[in-house]
Amino acid sequence: MYFLSDYGTADEFVGVVRAVLHGLAPTLSVIDLSHQVPAFDIAAGAAMLVRSGPYLGAGVVLAVVDPGVGTDRRGVALEVPAGGPRWLVGPDNGLLLPLAASLGGVRAAYALDPVRTGTDRPGGTFDGRDVFAPAAAHLAAGGDPRVIGQPIVAATLRSGPDGGRPGPEGSTRGSGGDLPGVRAEVTWIDGFGNVQLAARPDALSAIGLTMGGTSRVTVAPREVGAGDREARTVLATRVTAFGQLAPGQFGLLDDANGLVSLVLDRASAARVLGLPGPGIAVHIGPDDRGAPRDAGPPDV
Amino acid sequence: MYFLSDYGTADEFVGVVRAVLHGLAPTLSVIDLSHQVPAFDIAAGAAMLVRSGPYLGAGVVLAVVDPGVGTDRRGVALEVPAGGPRWLVGPDNGLLLPLAASLGGVRAAYALDPVRTGTDRPGGTFDGRDVFAPAAAHLAAGGDPRVIGQPIVAATLRSGPDGGRPGPEGSTRGSGGDLPGVRAEVTWIDGFGNVQLAARPDALSAIGLTMGGTSRVTVAPREVGAGDREARTVLATRVTAFGQLAPGQFGLLDDANGLVSLVLDRASAARVLGLPGPGIAVHIGPDDRGAPRDAGPPDV
Amino acid sequence: MYFLSDYGTADEFVGVVRAVLHGLAPTLSVIDLSHQVPAFDIAAGAAMLVRSGPYLGAGVVLAVVDPGVGTDRRGVALEVPAGGPRWLVGPDNGLLLPLAASLGGVRAAYALDPVRTGTDRPGGTFDGRDVFAPAAAHLAAGGDPRVIGQPIVAATLRSGPDGGRPGPEGSTRGSGGDLPGVRAEVTWIDGFGNVQLAARPDALSAIGLTMGGTSRVTVAPREVGAGDREARTVLATRVTAFGQLAPGQFGLLDDANGLVSLVLDRASAARVLGLPGPGIAVHIGPDDRGAPRDAGPPDV
Repeated sequence: MYFLSDYGTADEFVGVVRAVLHGLAPTLSVIDLSHQVPAFDIAAGAAMLVRSGPYLGAGVVLAVVDPGVGTDRRGVALEVPAGGPRWLVGPDNGLLLPLAASLGGVRAAYALDPVRTGTDRPGGTFDGRDVFAPAAAHLAAGGDPRVIGQPIVAATLRSGPDGGRPGPEGSTRGSGGDLPGVRAEVTWIDGFGNVQLAARPDALSAIGLTMGGTSRVTVAPREVGAGDREARTVLATRVTAFGQLAPGQFGLLDDANGLVSLVLDRASAARVLGLPGPGIAVHIGPDDRGAPRDAGPPDV
Repeated sequence: MYFLSDYGTADEFVGVVRAVLHGLAPTLSVIDLSHQVPAFDIAAGAAMLVRSGPYLGAGVVLAVVDPGVGTDRRGVALEVPAGGPRWLVGPDNGLLLPLAASLGGVRAAYALDPVRTGTDRPGGTFDGRDVFAPAAAHLAAGGDPRVIGQPIVAATLRSGPDGGRPGPEGSTRGSGGDLPGVRAEVTWIDGFGNVQLAARPDALSAIGLTMGGTSRVTVAPREVGAGDREARTVLATRVTAFGQLAPGQFGLLDDANGLVSLVLDRASAARVLGLPGPGIAVHIGPDDRGAPRDAGPPDV
Repeated sequence: MYFLSDYGTADEFVGVVRAVLHGLAPTLSVIDLSHQVPAFDIAAGAAMLVRSGPYLGAGVVLAVVDPGVGTDRRGVALEVPAGGPRWLVGPDNGLLLPLAASLGGVRAAYALDPVRTGTDRPGGTFDGRDVFAPAAAHLAAGGDPRVIGQPIVAATLRSGPDGGRPGPEGSTRGSGGDLPGVRAEVTWIDGFGNVQLAARPDALSAIGLTMGGTSRVTVAPREVGAGDREARTVLATRVTAFGQLAPGQFGLLDDANGLVSLVLDRASAARVLGLPGPGIAVHIGPDDRGAPRDAGPPDV
């Protein structure tokens, strides 16, 4: 089983869910993907699941980022085609759908019945413990989904907030109309400060940016407060490894998820550029000043 | 086995203890409850164990929050009645007693003999590695406790600092004498900023606060520095789910531990109220201004 | 298997590597040493491995702190003498050599062939997932190292940055020439703020500092910015347990790694002294003011 949540690691939430899983399925091995999804950030959790998807084996994905817990939002189990995990279990709030799509789509969907999965535990605000873990353990053991829920029509499943952020899947069609180049949103800033973009490396090739070539990257931060943040432009060299960059030199890296990341070597590109998180638009255009051999930290 | 500590996750402490456990009991599965108990905070660790207690299965609980390591404080193994975990292993400093009480009380207690559990490892400041892990592995394998320690009288076990903070168990008898309402201390602020109180939901019902009703909640922060922090009063609506609250509206939630938590939806009530941690007194009284239908963020 | 990295816990990196390991070796148990090695800090990761070394059982150590990923730095598998782990797998950048030395030296070394270990996964920047995990799983299953790499001469393995920080092994020969006493560098500041020194307790005994005795400890912070930080001197009492210290009293502790640590009881010595990290020189000399019985917080 694979387990992702926004529970954090400071409290006992993850431990309690694992204790419940262990009680129901003592031989089940549980792999934590991460429990530090930003609190309530369904889109970030969904993106993390999609990035993890290609590396997951058979079994169940248990995912809980669930601001609507206790309301009438449904808990669901989604069956996906064989090959990787077979079941995705969590809230019906858009968290699971992008992963399901990347694994071949929803083959069958069930709304979990809290009465049948849950117990007489206090409160209604910890469905990870009370509903999702029991359901996931049941399915991991090969149980019949109709024991814990009823079939629902997949088309009724909810997509994420604002229809879902452009995900790592199929989002390279972002060339701007006005400016030549590639336009893409930031999809993820990882713990090293690398800035992943919703663009595939072949989109860079398509605008003539070959390996070692330099382009102008313009970052348009979201309006914050008085909205007086300005766009910022830096030169960035297309590379395949961090170590090909000089100190302070920005790179456009063919990253480990098959996308392009804006990076520095051993430093946080996000911090240097003042990027707070996903969603910001980035434009990659030709370097009309020519491609300096040793760009260094540009001050444009 | 269930493992809790204040070791943090930045250093290798947890990994080394798990390596020792694995060496002694290769097939043992170890579930981490949390290793981010605030450093040296015995009461916080004890409360975390109590909250986790109902969900733990058979086996051993290994818990280490141990500011007195290396002094003459004892290491102990406590046997509790069957049903959940059978053994609690850790320092004799009050960390284990509240969990033992919640599991039915101490049936037998043993003082661990470091000579018999420990090895020729350097230093005397890492009993988690050198004494508690070997003792826990021994007991998890069904070993005789007299091999690793000698029986002691349970009445000699130490309770926690200042007799133990009012715990989640049996602490709803806190109605104030002067003011009508419920008086309770903060027991826990979780990673989302939810503020758990030492009061059960039926205490709210007892003062006439029904689901959807509004009450005045007065928070008296501990005196800090010059002691000039004032009590703060907000309106809060009794709810069963975060999603029943409007943005900025405080709620009194029937929480997942069977207690009342003061919360906001998708925001940190603790941060908004400036609450630093457990121990602060909170008073929940009738809303003498009447219960507005849509309270919104009160500015009282 | 034992797994250490600088991946952090916020992203899914660790989970994905564990998923890959689980896919290749479903029954393998994986123990995380830590994934919060400071980013790119090879020396800190190497020191953590060395400290963990004595407690590791048979199997494979997978360690990834790898700023050079994607460059021509080699990935390696190092065989060490029987007794603890047999294989160390990771980048050839000095991360593994100190652990290998502490375990008896490199018996055989292999350069990993990414073509034979890796897959058709995107990018070349996640060798933990694509090269090291498959290699480690292969070796954990008893596979022939020549299937995944070719033998190399151990003498060609790279040592760490600046030849490696003086490690916990054999670094007590640091008595200063000018001043009587022990001179040692800070090797590690743990999460509690304890300051470990590259000195063994017998070096303290050699300068006449017996248990309970007091010495003058001078800390020379690294020059920062304008370089105007001054050395700072405090009195410290030699102890075997934190609990032997009064509040605010510094101690020189025989620590759990067989070294000397400069500590406070239930407080961060590093923070009080303003020490940012390893590498700082510390001098431990006689207390020429005499050894006060109850030193208390010194204001020298």
